[in-house]
Amino acid sequence: MKNPPSLDQLIAALKVLPGVGPKSAQRMAFHLLQRDKAGADKLARALDRALLNLRHCERCHTFSETPLCNVCADDKRRQEVLCVVEMPADLLMLEQTRCYDGLYFVLMGRLSPMDGVGPKDIDLERLIARACDGVVAEVIVATNFTAEGEVTAHLIAEMLKAQGLKVTRIARGMPVGGELEYVDPGTLAQAMYERRTLS
Amino acid sequence: MKNPPSLDQLIAALKVLPGVGPKSAQRMAFHLLQRDKAGADKLARALDRALLNLRHCERCHTFSETPLCNVCADDKRRQEVLCVVEMPADLLMLEQTRCYDGLYFVLMGRLSPMDGVGPKDIDLERLIARACDGVVAEVIVATNFTAEGEVTAHLIAEMLKAQGLKVTRIARGMPVGGELEYVDPGTLAQAMYERRTLS
Ligand SMILES: [Zn+2]
Ligand SMILES: [Zn+2]
Repeated sequence: MKNPPSLDQLIAALKVLPGVGPKSAQRMAFHLLQRDKAGADKLARALDRALLNLRHCERCHTFSETPLCNVCADDKRRQEVLCVVEMPADLLMLEQTRCYDGLYFVLMGRLSPMDGVGPKDIDLERLIARACDGVVAEVIVATNFTAEGEVTAHLIAEMLKAQGLKVTRIARGMPVGGELEYVDPGTLAQAMYERRTLS
Repeated sequence: MKNPPSLDQLIAALKVLPGVGPKSAQRMAFHLLQRDKAGADKLARALDRALLNLRHCERCHTFSETPLCNVCADDKRRQEVLCVVEMPADLLMLEQTRCYDGLYFVLMGRLSPMDGVGPKDIDLERLIARACDGVVAEVIVATNFTAEGEVTAHLIAEMLKAQGLKVTRIARGMPVGGELEYVDPGTLAQAMYERRTLS
């Protein structure tokens, strides 16, 4: 006696989700099939739609349904300041603080030598090309203040200073080890105002 | 600036999964879109297939792709013993012990007055009809030894004894508060062998 194939396949498929092991995949499958078939269908449709519609913004690389995201397409934003963040959620947090009117570059990750994530995996060449467009005068590095975020910030600063750009880092007003996503907007705004030039 | 609609919809849809809040839904969505599009597609297909193919076995109510599940369709199983479990995973665990050759009835839940799950929600009428087919001579109650499983066992025993059936409970060889799914097969087999008649 085994589970029916389509049940085993669903349980296996749910394990693609980060943090979901065999037991919670099974619990999720039972829940969907027993108590929330409408939710299961909604999830299948949302996955299809997201896979079909979402691409990366051509300028900042965040998720977007259009070639340029709303921020990059907005010509009222200051074109000479470029803020580098790790993830789209960090960009949204900064937008929420309303303290920044420049543009962004989203790394879609961070350097993580332990996990085998090197410079090529987060496409730093693309960042350099973007920052050296002749319009950007300052690059604000707003990666997380985790060990990985700091390593990433350091490498970015070295590479961009070599191109003659002014590179700043948001102030260490954030708690050490903190992540942008989880901090309150006030603290994050303070860190933005107190950004310092990387020597 | 907000997330693109199809991204927000995917994040919202992932929250239908039990134990998944806004932050982990967001992390899951980014992971799928950034690192595992094939996994996202696999999940969407598995959900569709499961919704299309899975139904409940007509006799024991477990998940099945056919009108009768493998156990119920197997005429070598003893037809006069019926083992009541909470979930399909419990049935699989008992099958793994290889100590039981009767049939099953899967409640697909348990009584849980705190969560508003009453006798009607787990369809005890259906169990009584099944147990009173004139062939079943003994009903083994193998619900979990949690508070909810014990309440469920008690009510089932009262209802079936009123119908003149012999009702037994797997032995309390299991740890108090333990769940079938998480116990080792040896302990579970012992509990099956030492089942006692409910007085
Ligand atoms: Zn953009
Ligand atoms: Zn069956």
